[in-house]
Amino acid sequence: MLAASYTGDRTFVVHEADPAPPGPGQVRIDVAYVGICGTDLHIFHGAMDSRVTMPAVIGHEMSGRIAALGEGVDGWRPGDGVTVIPLDSCGSCAACRAGHSHICQRLSFVGIDATGAMQQSWTIDQELLVGLPDGLALEHAALAEPVAVAVHDVRRAALESGERALVVGGGPIGTLIAAVAQAHGAEVLLSEPNAFRRSVAEGLGVRTVDPAAADLVAVVEEWTDGAGVPVAFEVSGAPAGLAGATHALGVRGRLVVVAIHPGPVPVDLHRVFWRELTLIGARVYERRDFEAAVALVAAGGVPAEALISRVEPLVRTPAAFAALESGGDVMKVLIDCRA
Amino acid sequence: MLAASYTGDRTFVVHEADPAPPGPGQVRIDVAYVGICGTDLHIFHGAMDSRVTMPAVIGHEMSGRIAALGEGVDGWRPGDGVTVIPLDSCGSCAACRAGHSHICQRLSFVGIDATGAMQQSWTIDQELLVGLPDGLALEHAALAEPVAVAVHDVRRAALESGERALVVGGGPIGTLIAAVAQAHGAEVLLSEPNAFRRSVAEGLGVRTVDPAAADLVAVVEEWTDGAGVPVAFEVSGAPAGLAGATHALGVRGRLVVVAIHPGPVPVDLHRVFWRELTLIGARVYERRDFEAAVALVAAGGVPAEALISRVEPLVRTPAAFAALESGGDVMKVLIDCRA
Repeated sequence: MLAASYTGDRTFVVHEADPAPPGPGQVRIDVAYVGICGTDLHIFHGAMDSRVTMPAVIGHEMSGRIAALGEGVDGWRPGDGVTVIPLDSCGSCAACRAGHSHICQRLSFVGIDATGAMQQSWTIDQELLVGLPDGLALEHAALAEPVAVAVHDVRRAALESGERALVVGGGPIGTLIAAVAQAHGAEVLLSEPNAFRRSVAEGLGVRTVDPAAADLVAVVEEWTDGAGVPVAFEVSGAPAGLAGATHALGVRGRLVVVAIHPGPVPVDLHRVFWRELTLIGARVYERRDFEAAVALVAAGGVPAEALISRVEPLVRTPAAFAALESGGDVMKVLIDCRA
Repeated sequence: MLAASYTGDRTFVVHEADPAPPGPGQVRIDVAYVGICGTDLHIFHGAMDSRVTMPAVIGHEMSGRIAALGEGVDGWRPGDGVTVIPLDSCGSCAACRAGHSHICQRLSFVGIDATGAMQQSWTIDQELLVGLPDGLALEHAALAEPVAVAVHDVRRAALESGERALVVGGGPIGTLIAAVAQAHGAEVLLSEPNAFRRSVAEGLGVRTVDPAAADLVAVVEEWTDGAGVPVAFEVSGAPAGLAGATHALGVRGRLVVVAIHPGPVPVDLHRVFWRELTLIGARVYERRDFEAAVALVAAGGVPAEALISRVEPLVRTPAAFAALESGGDVMKVLIDCRA
């Protein structure tokens, strides 16, 4: 089989490798599609060289079919369509004991801390499997992981039907949050400077604003008759985006911090105090978010076609990363491991 | 009667004035005690000269007895012991309409934006009255306002009995939060560099730590077997205090931002993300907090004697401010308007 390995220095090598036979409690999956995540791009850029073990097969957004079962595996059959929840928790730390195993203090993120999906055959523990319903296209199912992020973020916001929500940042995650929020009955305004990304959101019926051309807070004030929005999602990772989201919120507004800000960032705590805002950290997803995400993708609740900008065969993994890196009119790039 | 007026330039002038007769719906109060708040000290320092109208009678922590009733006042009698909830809301803005009149977008804070209590006779709208139970000493009742702040903060934290809570900053509000949290059945650790203030908290049975002498986060880790605390209150107003509180929290920890940080402050949003923390803004109190505060003071649930460091007669208002400003072994200073 073929596998793509990150070898450092912005390099992927696609090479022959032997499939790992499934051990007890494991399954071997014939991988179909793998999505490239922003984290994968960080790895490509060398920003996580201290965390990954090179040569590293990465990738944690995927779909495929079970090819072989290890000893003691129950409830799965060869041919079953599956995706994988890439969180391997310890089960014994304070987070796990409190029922928050998705933020386990010793979490192994599969595809970063352990071998990932950018290969034709992948062997993993059955506990990480999430089944796919019949009829769900494997290309679309590869979006389940980022959709699960959006489902978790919307759940952390306790978003209610009929509420207005601001999403700051219109990349794949921001666009999926907008779609999931709409599916929850919310009215969404998405702030994004890139015209192509705005057009994708507009195709979903989402109201958009270009924060480089208009005063975001003024637009929100007008939209909400001066009240501000009850919910905002900070998905830009930029201090200006964070400030805009903070100032767009009304009294008791909830701000979900989705983007990963690597270090301390200035936050207007006076506004947090003045309007009694709540800032809510959100990280990955829980199993119920993942299962809800699969159901949402299967029901056509997310714009899968509009989000998948490009599909490249596994042998062209280096080109796929280069395409994503070049920016431009691109949202999600998938690698087709069967091609 | 006598009144103390702030005239700018760190100056209070104590002078004769005519009591204002109560208009329709108003009462005139014979003021007993007025507490000096940190905000009053800010005014004294000139930091709020653009907000107060000089000469300004300030003061919003008080107790007294009703002296006269205006037309149409119902349910109150001369001689009734009262305190005042100093929040005058508009009733029509988005905050008021949403039931959050305490953070009204056009809030008038009585004692800052309107005439306050540092005078022997004070005339206000009956809607702002909060009755005192028989037997509650007026000296202690003057603490109801800061106790209401603490009650509101603890309620914003959704603190549960048996939970561990960290309070960063042991001034009057931090100490009251510790006392109210204990009254809710929580175990409290208070971080405060001033030895006198730590001794006051220790007198309440609160565990303390000097963050200048020990590693706060390490102390919390040891206290919680590595899990971190579920709740922290940031009452220091210092970036280091905020950072300590953020890092002392366990997974899904709640951080109530009590101190007023005047501008943007660096917040470790990576930690907020990593542990799915929640930052909760808290401002003043609602009427139910104020009523709960009066009941708590009446029940001896807060250390009134330990908190009242000094009582000065109204004529010595300038000396009272100077004493508070000089720091040292002082918590709360009251002005006795009857002396």
